[in-house]
Amino acid sequence: MTLVSDWTALAGRTLACCLEIAACTEVPGQITRTFLCPPMHEAHARLDAWAASLGLQTREDAAGNWRATRRSARPGARTLVVGSHLDSVPDAGAYDGVLGVVLGLALLEALGDTPLPYHVELVGFSEEEGVRFGVPFIGSRALVGTAGELLEVTDAGGKTVAQVIAEYGLDVGRLEEARLTGDVLGYLEMHIEQGPVLEAEGRSLGLVEAIAGQSRLDLTFTGKANHAGTTPMGLRRDALTGTSAFVLAAENLARSTPGLVATVGSLTPLPGASNVIPGEVHLTLDIRHARDEVRLGALDQLLTVAEGIARERGLTFSHQLRMEEHATPMNPALTVLLGEAMSAEGQVAVPMVSGAGHDAMLVGQVWPAAMLFLRSPGGLSHHPDEAVLEEDVEAALRVGARFLRLLAEREEAR
Amino acid sequence: MTLVSDWTALAGRTLACCLEIAACTEVPGQITRTFLCPPMHEAHARLDAWAASLGLQTREDAAGNWRATRRSARPGARTLVVGSHLDSVPDAGAYDGVLGVVLGLALLEALGDTPLPYHVELVGFSEEEGVRFGVPFIGSRALVGTAGELLEVTDAGGKTVAQVIAEYGLDVGRLEEARLTGDVLGYLEMHIEQGPVLEAEGRSLGLVEAIAGQSRLDLTFTGKANHAGTTPMGLRRDALTGTSAFVLAAENLARSTPGLVATVGSLTPLPGASNVIPGEVHLTLDIRHARDEVRLGALDQLLTVAEGIARERGLTFSHQLRMEEHATPMNPALTVLLGEAMSAEGQVAVPMVSGAGHDAMLVGQVWPAAMLFLRSPGGLSHHPDEAVLEEDVEAALRVGARFLRLLAEREEAR
Repeated sequence: MTLVSDWTALAGRTLACCLEIAACTEVPGQITRTFLCPPMHEAHARLDAWAASLGLQTREDAAGNWRATRRSARPGARTLVVGSHLDSVPDAGAYDGVLGVVLGLALLEALGDTPLPYHVELVGFSEEEGVRFGVPFIGSRALVGTAGELLEVTDAGGKTVAQVIAEYGLDVGRLEEARLTGDVLGYLEMHIEQGPVLEAEGRSLGLVEAIAGQSRLDLTFTGKANHAGTTPMGLRRDALTGTSAFVLAAENLARSTPGLVATVGSLTPLPGASNVIPGEVHLTLDIRHARDEVRLGALDQLLTVAEGIARERGLTFSHQLRMEEHATPMNPALTVLLGEAMSAEGQVAVPMVSGAGHDAMLVGQVWPAAMLFLRSPGGLSHHPDEAVLEEDVEAALRVGARFLRLLAEREEAR
Repeated sequence: MTLVSDWTALAGRTLACCLEIAACTEVPGQITRTFLCPPMHEAHARLDAWAASLGLQTREDAAGNWRATRRSARPGARTLVVGSHLDSVPDAGAYDGVLGVVLGLALLEALGDTPLPYHVELVGFSEEEGVRFGVPFIGSRALVGTAGELLEVTDAGGKTVAQVIAEYGLDVGRLEEARLTGDVLGYLEMHIEQGPVLEAEGRSLGLVEAIAGQSRLDLTFTGKANHAGTTPMGLRRDALTGTSAFVLAAENLARSTPGLVATVGSLTPLPGASNVIPGEVHLTLDIRHARDEVRLGALDQLLTVAEGIARERGLTFSHQLRMEEHATPMNPALTVLLGEAMSAEGQVAVPMVSGAGHDAMLVGQVWPAAMLFLRSPGGLSHHPDEAVLEEDVEAALRVGARFLRLLAEREEAR
């Protein structure tokens, strides 16, 4: 396998391409690129230019995914999908999603004309963040053939997914052709960590063993609003002090359960006046773990704690489940192979869990998936200051190329 | 001293008059009567009618206070002021303030033509709630001669206190005449408790020994906003969990300090999204006690606790004092006399503290003041369901009449 001699230069061009795509934005001065917004045409054009220099055929499928195919000459070759997403949250950084797509192009460049025993399908998913329609993963759902059910979902302006696809200039009637058919051997996604773990451990790369499952709930503690001056402590039914006890209980449980994260992100006491004892508090709970049974057990325990706090304080407690996603384990064989590639390139392959959702959740339900994380300086993401280090991009390129080679050996021995 | 034979009927007429005044409102279907709103004319007219039936002279002073004077024939007689306020919060109940004024009229009726060795100046203060101009006690400030400094304060619509007085039809140039001159022996205010203490203790009446001092502060805990899924518990700087520890610390300190109340009524985590760890929390602290040194000591202690929580959790803490009112002790001699009147009428005279502010705070800084509380069913106040029991009104009338008699004996012995 021919490998490029100057990995650093390739890493530099990878980052430069991400910045070019960052300039394709709906909001001048920001990076904002939601599902099939007009600037997505320009983002695809940037990718097309690089792909063309490699002699690759590209297309936009009917879900707006950008796709480039590198064919293998081997009869009966299977397909490796490499990808990530090209949309962004509002006022985003330049790397969340985009980096994984551009890294795929850079890897294909690094391959040169080295023959591979598998096709490579590089995909820039049109939508992963769920910003415009509330539901995420429109792009990867199309790839696995389940996007059809979303066509009538509407955005804030009342437009459907189907209308947005048509306005972008695509034929929604050909959505089925977006589905990847044939024999798929696996999916590789490279993505920034969006968290502080790799930085804290002083590592460039992380080997994702699972994407955490998550539950999101709306909780309410109800007591009795009363005058802050005239109601003695012993006669209060303060919904906020009860809520505070719950917030600390959730923190304690998560701290004492390896891998569990629990977050109260929103909390609203009512009536919310400085001189009135809160009679009601609405709050959210977000709880995640790589193993569903741990998450569900912890959630049960916290709901019991909440009931106990309410009982003890003369409050009532209610909850409503708003969202539940099962954990998605990565494919063990493919992940072991990716770990071998890391070790061969001098990277410590300590497994980690992704607390955020990724296209690999959807794709991983259908085909074997593996994920490589790149360190996020400051743990920052979904923020204009989101960054990635050139040395980490170079490490990802070396590991990615090594992975493609190990996978080629495995396929040839098949 | 002549006393009425049917206290129950007088209590009934007292309550009926309160309801008539409740019908004088700015907002149909609600009870809303802010400083010198047009319906205040009608409220005064209802009081005038009762006063006229007793042969009392009434007037509106230049601050819009309703005043009725019962002259003593005794040479050199001093003046007892009896009063409370006639304004209300928006969507109020019928009794907060008004009841104290109407009880004063009912007491003067109960006196009949019994001579007293002191004049009685009955005052319905024009403003106590602070709704329209943000500063409370405009009426009682005028009585003690300190309202002049408020004349240029503006309401939300940009109108000054002086303009509102003129529009109501009063001559702001005569504000000095609103000041009560001559020798004042004391002030009696009867008011609903606005809290649950008397109801919890099964008592009709409470003997106020002090109006609590209070401090109100804005507090901020600042940590770092981060992704709820990708940030492990050990790498978080969650401003909300730190705030929760503080809320519980404030509750614990207040519970373990007799008479102290501490309330966090408003609390806003930022950014406030369910999947983002709060990076900043703004909250309020309201802390009250009858003794200033207890309140200030507790406040110091809580600020130290907050600093400690911040240090321990990698947060920063800041605070800003928004309001501070010193405690106002009631006059001991007058309060003892009121307690004797309670005992003589079969009421237990256990001293209590008013956690809410009252006109007696302002008046009590100049003249000896005493306050009698009437039980608030459900502890409810500033609410359309605010109530008072007829039996408690009757008890207040009996105690009030006994107090006037005991005071007469004391004045005669002087």
